[in-house]
Amino acid sequence: MEHLEGRQSVLAALAARRRKFEVVLVNQGSHEEKIQDVLDAAAAAGVPVKRVSGRELDAMAHGATHGGVLAVCSAKPRTTAGELLDILDQSSTPPLLLLIEGVEDARNLGFTLRSAEALGATAVLIKKHLWDFDSTEVARPASGAFERLPLVQLEDLELIDALRLRGIRLLGCIANVKRTIYDVDLTGGVILAIGGEKRGLSGAVRGICDQLITIPTVENAASLPLSHAAAIVLAEAHRQRISR
Amino acid sequence: MEHLEGRQSVLAALAARRRKFEVVLVNQGSHEEKIQDVLDAAAAAGVPVKRVSGRELDAMAHGATHGGVLAVCSAKPRTTAGELLDILDQSSTPPLLLLIEGVEDARNLGFTLRSAEALGATAVLIKKHLWDFDSTEVARPASGAFERLPLVQLEDLELIDALRLRGIRLLGCIANVKRTIYDVDLTGGVILAIGGEKRGLSGAVRGICDQLITIPTVENAASLPLSHAAAIVLAEAHRQRISR
Repeated sequence: MEHLEGRQSVLAALAARRRKFEVVLVNQGSHEEKIQDVLDAAAAAGVPVKRVSGRELDAMAHGATHGGVLAVCSAKPRTTAGELLDILDQSSTPPLLLLIEGVEDARNLGFTLRSAEALGATAVLIKKHLWDFDSTEVARPASGAFERLPLVQLEDLELIDALRLRGIRLLGCIANVKRTIYDVDLTGGVILAIGGEKRGLSGAVRGICDQLITIPTVENAASLPLSHAAAIVLAEAHRQRISR
Repeated sequence: MEHLEGRQSVLAALAARRRKFEVVLVNQGSHEEKIQDVLDAAAAAGVPVKRVSGRELDAMAHGATHGGVLAVCSAKPRTTAGELLDILDQSSTPPLLLLIEGVEDARNLGFTLRSAEALGATAVLIKKHLWDFDSTEVARPASGAFERLPLVQLEDLELIDALRLRGIRLLGCIANVKRTIYDVDLTGGVILAIGGEKRGLSGAVRGICDQLITIPTVENAASLPLSHAAAIVLAEAHRQRISR
């Protein structure tokens, strides 16, 4: 059992029905109308609600940003490679997949999931040995996206091969190549691969990319933070897709 | 005196010459060639270097990401409104200013400064009552941008008025307006105003915007994180400017 903190995360998890809930805790001082949606969603899912003091909530939560709502529930099951392929088979739009390597921070991962969902990503793929995060810390900044967006753990590159066999192109974002994200067509099925700030994209992924592309930046500046680079390239893909 | 952590931050600060340095501390276990640039920069600036144990550095630093380099120095002086106007007068390119409200986290501010610099921003403006951050925590993720990029504290909206009198347009990024960031010309002098995730842009700023624009996102998703929204709109401005 783990904790899920904050209204948006708890509401999203209750709606997604992928976790098993033990109880939803709400601050006994919360106004009824401010948590009515949480009460309704818990009732619809058959999950008991308990009113506790703000002090009890603070003691259970990671920080002070739970906003008076906390759930005790099972971990969110990860999406398997097989499940991802099923999702893609059922989708009517060309897949927009984000592959991230070298994420070092649970909050940055959460923010990245949030942007990925907002910009129309179908799923996010993450390298296995980096999957070592406190999921409460990931869920909070994701503001519900952690519950809704498929997150797939890449065990090896077999899944990438399977995706490429389906005509999905693997595009690696790195510094200092001539072709920019604005020069390529991102409206077809694509995996956008982005590496960490320190080491960039791994040689293993870089070696199988169909194309390498770059986000134009000015000279003599530091590299873009990973989560910002992901947001920028996803926004460009979304722009191309809606302008069609 | 405050601490500045990490090679990139210390190098950038030594080069920018806006802080007064007491000493630069380096891990006595560091290979000479790995810190040679730090030693050279300190020598050029006439700042003493002291070798200390990794344990001592860890004890002084906020986290474990100092990479063996830490400086004891004065706070970086903020850029005043008058200095900003001077900078704009001397610049040959149309100003690209980022105005952010509602930043709640020092690290997010640092990441935002880093992207702002990489995407060609002239300066970043931040609302005064939000300027309450641990600057060591801001500097670290900014990877040098905190030292190089002018950061101006907005006391009131007088500076905005002065900028608008110079023909710089104030564009507010908010959700749910029809005009997108791709529909407007961002190649002239602009201030891009972005609000926090919770409350969005304040009424005071919104009320004086020349135009309201939006970053297109999908329906039924959470809003974009502030720092990601800033990166996306700055990237679009940079794209327009380099494609001219």
